[in-house]
Amino acid sequence: MTLTDHGASPLAEERLTTLGSRLRTALDGRFAAERAVARATFPSENLHRDPEMGMHEAREWTLERLVEVAGAGFGSSGVPERAGAPADPLAAVVTFEMLAHGDLSTTIKSGVQFGLFGGAITNLGNDWHHDTFLPGVCDMSLLGAFAMTEMGHGSDVMNVETTITYVPETDEYEVDSPTPGSKKAYLGNAAKHGTMAAVFGQLIVDGERHGVHTILVPIRDGEGNDLPGVTTGDHGHKGGLLGIDNGTIVFDHVRVPRTWLLDRFGGVGEDGTYRSPIKNQNARFFTMLGTLVRGRVCVGGAGAIAARRALSIATRYALQRRQFPAAGRPDGVLLLDYSVHQKRLLPRIARSYALGFAQDELVADLVRIQGGGEYTDREQRDLETLAAGLKSMQTWFANDTLQAAREACGGAGYMSENRITEMRRDVDIFATFEGDNTVLMQLVAKALLTDLKQSWSALDRGGLVQASARVAGETVMERTAAGPLLDRLANAVRGRAEETTLVDRGWHALMFEERAHHSLESLGRRMRAAGKGRGDQFEAFNRLGGHVQFVARAHMERVILSAFIAAIDACEDKETRGVLERLCSLYALQSIHEDRAWYLEHNRISAGRSKAIGAQIDSLCRELRPHALPLVEGLGVPESWLGTVMLED
Amino acid sequence: MTLTDHGASPLAEERLTTLGSRLRTALDGRFAAERAVARATFPSENLHRDPEMGMHEAREWTLERLVEVAGAGFGSSGVPERAGAPADPLAAVVTFEMLAHGDLSTTIKSGVQFGLFGGAITNLGNDWHHDTFLPGVCDMSLLGAFAMTEMGHGSDVMNVETTITYVPETDEYEVDSPTPGSKKAYLGNAAKHGTMAAVFGQLIVDGERHGVHTILVPIRDGEGNDLPGVTTGDHGHKGGLLGIDNGTIVFDHVRVPRTWLLDRFGGVGEDGTYRSPIKNQNARFFTMLGTLVRGRVCVGGAGAIAARRALSIATRYALQRRQFPAAGRPDGVLLLDYSVHQKRLLPRIARSYALGFAQDELVADLVRIQGGGEYTDREQRDLETLAAGLKSMQTWFANDTLQAAREACGGAGYMSENRITEMRRDVDIFATFEGDNTVLMQLVAKALLTDLKQSWSALDRGGLVQASARVAGETVMERTAAGPLLDRLANAVRGRAEETTLVDRGWHALMFEERAHHSLESLGRRMRAAGKGRGDQFEAFNRLGGHVQFVARAHMERVILSAFIAAIDACEDKETRGVLERLCSLYALQSIHEDRAWYLEHNRISAGRSKAIGAQIDSLCRELRPHALPLVEGLGVPESWLGTVMLED
Repeated sequence: MTLTDHGASPLAEERLTTLGSRLRTALDGRFAAERAVARATFPSENLHRDPEMGMHEAREWTLERLVEVAGAGFGSSGVPERAGAPADPLAAVVTFEMLAHGDLSTTIKSGVQFGLFGGAITNLGNDWHHDTFLPGVCDMSLLGAFAMTEMGHGSDVMNVETTITYVPETDEYEVDSPTPGSKKAYLGNAAKHGTMAAVFGQLIVDGERHGVHTILVPIRDGEGNDLPGVTTGDHGHKGGLLGIDNGTIVFDHVRVPRTWLLDRFGGVGEDGTYRSPIKNQNARFFTMLGTLVRGRVCVGGAGAIAARRALSIATRYALQRRQFPAAGRPDGVLLLDYSVHQKRLLPRIARSYALGFAQDELVADLVRIQGGGEYTDREQRDLETLAAGLKSMQTWFANDTLQAAREACGGAGYMSENRITEMRRDVDIFATFEGDNTVLMQLVAKALLTDLKQSWSALDRGGLVQASARVAGETVMERTAAGPLLDRLANAVRGRAEETTLVDRGWHALMFEERAHHSLESLGRRMRAAGKGRGDQFEAFNRLGGHVQFVARAHMERVILSAFIAAIDACEDKETRGVLERLCSLYALQSIHEDRAWYLEHNRISAGRSKAIGAQIDSLCRELRPHALPLVEGLGVPESWLGTVMLED
Repeated sequence: MTLTDHGASPLAEERLTTLGSRLRTALDGRFAAERAVARATFPSENLHRDPEMGMHEAREWTLERLVEVAGAGFGSSGVPERAGAPADPLAAVVTFEMLAHGDLSTTIKSGVQFGLFGGAITNLGNDWHHDTFLPGVCDMSLLGAFAMTEMGHGSDVMNVETTITYVPETDEYEVDSPTPGSKKAYLGNAAKHGTMAAVFGQLIVDGERHGVHTILVPIRDGEGNDLPGVTTGDHGHKGGLLGIDNGTIVFDHVRVPRTWLLDRFGGVGEDGTYRSPIKNQNARFFTMLGTLVRGRVCVGGAGAIAARRALSIATRYALQRRQFPAAGRPDGVLLLDYSVHQKRLLPRIARSYALGFAQDELVADLVRIQGGGEYTDREQRDLETLAAGLKSMQTWFANDTLQAAREACGGAGYMSENRITEMRRDVDIFATFEGDNTVLMQLVAKALLTDLKQSWSALDRGGLVQASARVAGETVMERTAAGPLLDRLANAVRGRAEETTLVDRGWHALMFEERAHHSLESLGRRMRAAGKGRGDQFEAFNRLGGHVQFVARAHMERVILSAFIAAIDACEDKETRGVLERLCSLYALQSIHEDRAWYLEHNRISAGRSKAIGAQIDSLCRELRPHALPLVEGLGVPESWLGTVMLED
């Protein structure tokens, strides 16, 4: 596509291109150097799978492609190859981002092999496990499944039914699937390629249950046959990710040597008794799960990349495709000149930037905590909360954006050669795996409520229960960077909210703060009432489900806005900064606009101001419209990687 | 699944089953008998295509399946087999509904062959065309493409670039694709199976252009080779509908006998001059397109059936699947007992009923107008407006519901063997073909504005421009049944809107009326201002794009509510009526809830009442929860037709 296609002069070309690269640098943020190197070295000749490939062919293609990218250094990054080798979470995250620019089955298969299977061994195993198994994981001679999910307990890991029973007579464990619901399900690498599984089950020693532990179990021989006592199944064709061989595993009293239990957080010692560095079973469970946080960080990031690809495709298409002729436009109107079309794409581009800045703060936290340094339990918990929330926000956004991009490209968007529909199919399940988004958002709300409860307890003791909960304690809200930054901005306009302009950052901050704080406090009150009431406790809490989701989302929006504002502060180039300022306003106003009913119901805005927000969004779209191409260039997806036939005309 | 799975007693089983069948009868409405016969006779052994089939295999399977159902009487219904034979639009609609219970590629291929290709010959051709071609269309020995859409003009049929030029020397037409944009695109039957196409192009006679006409052009020989001058192309793999061979056609000065132009509304006579029963070119164009309205009626109905299938699957799954244990529920909570889950499914079930009742009124209009009786131009235009609006509402709803159902079934929903994902892929494009939904909604708004303008003109003449437009003229709004019915109900509560209960039907009617009327009137005012302003006319109207969509949707919601109320009035069974009343309240409140920002901004509800609506929706969901199974039984999809592995456990 040449620039004349969308009406810019040749002279403007250099300036626009430059703006795109400056936006990209700003969005790449503190990891700009690593990302630039990765983009320059990633093997991009064979990015996309032919959509006409059937399932079986797709699985083999995906395995070969993963071997290829792993050979080029984009596979096991982040997995240490032996005991004591340093983990490199940043390399893992950036590798996953690069992979997400191409076939998403390859991306997720890398996640299964290196992130989940390799991650379980790395995080839950001891030196012997590392030395024995990680070399095979890294060179892909040992392909493994991550056998956590069960048919009967999708999101309820604590209650998996698989048993891991210690057998003192032979110093072994016996792994068993005692019920139909305990069948391991939806596991990548289980239907075909895996020869081993990291199996989550209830550890039983001498009749006593010690909670969920993880054990390595060989499942197939070299010829691909199930080993004795192991029955694998194949989920067959799926809604997407055709290149992943998802399957089931059932264990019938399978014996495994005692040393194969990943026993960093607990297991049977040489003396045949159970020992663990963490006494409390609950605490142990959450510590074990907590080490797996990187998967969520990666999946959220991959969803965000998919959205960027779709926005890049749809925006470039809207800059070349003309629709009906109109006054002064006899050759037809460029799609992107329709107001309705601008509103499909530009607010999503703005949110794409916003999520990128927030993801970078999350990655920085991950690098700090999993990169070998010191960290507190609370920092670990905050990381998990942020990862859960951002994974949900990013994967929901990806699904929404992929559909919007498909529709924005009309019939052409439906042709698989243009990539959007295949991505859409693949990303669909991102909202469910690595934790169902709705359940993850409950975790976010729970963390917020826990802090609130502590504050309230303190206030209760002081007899000050009527006072605002905000005055006490250091809460998740305040521990994030969002706390002081937004609070300071908001304070500047508090009390004169209706007098500011609609693009006043202080007003955005105030609105985001009010939404998050007020909804949390009222949820807290309703929770207390529900807990004290008589009658069906489940029903009492059940009715708060929608409120819980709102609170979690309102908190995440705060975190995201705060990250955007910090990124603007870090940007030194004036023109770039100006564009980012408008993008940030568009993101913030769109968020307020979508919740304007809440703001009206809670008297945070007047009816007149509410109506004006829609007009301001239109106006920001018009202001950003001339920058559309640099805006998508800034999203960092090289045009040659899009692989879209309709843009090659 | 047995009833004990969801806690009902065996004694209740008979009653529940009976409620389901009574709901089904109510929803089947005035065509209950025809639908019951169709359900009983439809060949349902081979409903679903194996999702592992590749594209080429899928195309052949789909063709064979269409031959099979056509052989059983579910193919060409509605297409007359010869000149003078009566058309049967009701048979066509009911057949299409039945087909939509199975593989949607088969459904759409039937639409291409019988509805579009056969429909073009039936509606645009003369007796000779009928006698010559319809027998082959009906027995599928003549497979055809409907060559309307062009690469350069997706939704802009009036400006297609293909030319049909009369050649007096040989008494032929020459069909040509003069530009790259004139390539015919996305046509079913074009890539492989079709041997003929009904081609839309600009008719040119003696240098004069007479607007868009349609001509039959042979495109392939018996061996499947392109005929001389014809170049077909294959779109290959698509986002869904893999069984349809969508392709492109380019014509290079292809000669066709004069008699092959479908000339009911215009063409060259034996004397070599152009003649038409409709002098005005614009009027002729819209008359020709208007005859094709049945396609939209059918596609909307098929989308609605897909949504019913998804809701049937997801609700039945939610009645067998348990999640985390909770207080008083040690075996885990049934998915459908979660408040959040109820709100995913029950309001959509309510809307499914609502759309079904509205679709029936549309079908009744279609039967009246295309069934051989008399009708006025205005009735034809009103039918087109209603068809455009309901097609959009139903296909958007289908897409939304399929995704919600997928997520409601978690990982199991992602497995193709459970059918939801494949349906989702197929239905995606329903929002784009047979008219892009956004463009169709513009047509709805345009019809409303035309009436309003006439009212205003009348008022202008009387110097009463400030008065409400509602007082004058007979508008689309009033011509629909919705007009008097809702108006009467609304009048009963007007002036005391905040004093009614939230389930007061009069209040629902008032809110729906206010939304439709006020938004239309303010759009009319903004349009007048835009038309009178200086500067860029396109930009002035462009900014109203969002408002236009709102007006069209508000009008359609009125039509739908009114149909629901009429259906309740027609229901004589007390228990069934009680359930329908609650479903109607749930539908109406959900609609108001989703637009509550608008109602607040326009002072139609108070903040307190707005908040109370959410609680009332929760409460209605709880009241309807015990009826969940009969509610989906009432949707009329036989359980054995669902073809869902997860429900067979």
